[in-house]
Amino acid sequence: MCPSKVAEGAARGWLVPIGGAEDKGRDARILRRFVALAGGRAARIAVIPTASQSREAGPRYEQLFDELGARQVEVLDFGTRHDGQDRARLARIEQASAIFFTGGNQLRLSTLLGGTPAAQLIRARNAAGIPVGGTSAGAAILSEHMIAFGREGAAPQADSVRLAPGLGLTNRFVIDQHFRQRDRLGRLLAALAYNPFAIGIGLDEDTAAFIGPDNTLEVEGSGAVTVVDAGELEFSSMAEASERDPVCMLGLKMHLLLAGATYNLATRTASPGTLAREPT
Amino acid sequence: MCPSKVAEGAARGWLVPIGGAEDKGRDARILRRFVALAGGRAARIAVIPTASQSREAGPRYEQLFDELGARQVEVLDFGTRHDGQDRARLARIEQASAIFFTGGNQLRLSTLLGGTPAAQLIRARNAAGIPVGGTSAGAAILSEHMIAFGREGAAPQADSVRLAPGLGLTNRFVIDQHFRQRDRLGRLLAALAYNPFAIGIGLDEDTAAFIGPDNTLEVEGSGAVTVVDAGELEFSSMAEASERDPVCMLGLKMHLLLAGATYNLATRTASPGTLAREPT
Repeated sequence: MCPSKVAEGAARGWLVPIGGAEDKGRDARILRRFVALAGGRAARIAVIPTASQSREAGPRYEQLFDELGARQVEVLDFGTRHDGQDRARLARIEQASAIFFTGGNQLRLSTLLGGTPAAQLIRARNAAGIPVGGTSAGAAILSEHMIAFGREGAAPQADSVRLAPGLGLTNRFVIDQHFRQRDRLGRLLAALAYNPFAIGIGLDEDTAAFIGPDNTLEVEGSGAVTVVDAGELEFSSMAEASERDPVCMLGLKMHLLLAGATYNLATRTASPGTLAREPT
Repeated sequence: MCPSKVAEGAARGWLVPIGGAEDKGRDARILRRFVALAGGRAARIAVIPTASQSREAGPRYEQLFDELGARQVEVLDFGTRHDGQDRARLARIEQASAIFFTGGNQLRLSTLLGGTPAAQLIRARNAAGIPVGGTSAGAAILSEHMIAFGREGAAPQADSVRLAPGLGLTNRFVIDQHFRQRDRLGRLLAALAYNPFAIGIGLDEDTAAFIGPDNTLEVEGSGAVTVVDAGELEFSSMAEASERDPVCMLGLKMHLLLAGATYNLATRTASPGTLAREPT
């Protein structure tokens, strides 16, 4: 699904994919920054725990965002596709100043929400300016082409990844999470080999990409964001590879970004941002 | 140690680093090709098993090269640094048409051989044209800057790798082996972050880089060779990073090469080689 059109003069809301296992202690740098984007003391955050099978996922983030000073936090679960048409739920999305997806299984999100009025409304609200974030599965769902599942390992194989349509808030990148912790470079590369137009973003745990309306991504958290740009790929053997074959890919660009560093998804340029200090 | 000077009009011999666990069965593509480079039926191969603590390492390769048709195979062990001055051993290196290092611990090779007349002679013989190959630890030892040990993981940390001087047959690259199998991208990137002048070569198991006198590398075997080119690195936080910190690296180039693909270490360009077939 292509991203919703942004009205003339308007700006798309922030996208905040998080690599999972973000710090929930006193520091909580990522969640705190998300609350600030949502409006701080005026924030009304809708938490969607649908990816998770645990009943505690929703209430846990409700409490966290509450402690971080949000004015109102509501848990909005979708147990069936029918719930995606429910007027009360749609009204809450309409009133929210930010939406947050918990972790779990991204296929629960795409199968239960995909194509429903609720999904359409989330897309429209983001296009109108409100931030949408999510952790782990909740990060994967944000983009148009979502990694549904795949195998571990550093080298791409033809069958090492399965893509599925995501919420489509952006089509500029493919997101993967728990990146370093689960050795997922190979499956991200395989996803890019299918069609190198997108930029691959591998999020470590406790690490987030804060993607502004201008498509500049800034890293927050304790780990790295691995950006893989296959836009200048010179050769790929993906089309000829058998399922378990490794894939030849020539001409990849890669950047390892830490907190403070930025990447512009439009110009495809990385910058050390606040990491580059003046010599003392 | 800088590579030995190649005499005017002469050409350096091939370098054949292998990622370990190469096929030793009927196919034995890598070892077979090494024997061919060594002269085929005229080959006189000196096998140096010094990296290994196992008594079987030498005789095993002796038998393998013998079965693959080499004219003469001799095992040449170095138990002490004194052995590196032994005239009989030096004479065998002088007569060999190729030299092969088995796997084991690369620090045994560098500590026992480094700086001895035997090491000097191997360097001189390669500069004069004979091929030198090695598997696993025997691959690591070939270059000037050798990865002595390091930690697993896809992201570089300041202390994730320790370098030591190798045999110095080339200074153009840093080699790592068992690459995909042991998740070693991070330590190779850390090695390049120290000084981005070299090109990183990550060899999968049963995969070799056949590096010709013209510094063009061709891949042989069932896995991939990951080439990392940090020559255009735009930023690195290595100098400021604490030991366990991840390292920010912007502007890396990466190529995943399969059998038949080539990489020119002088021009830093990758090519699909025989992988690029005409459409049928």
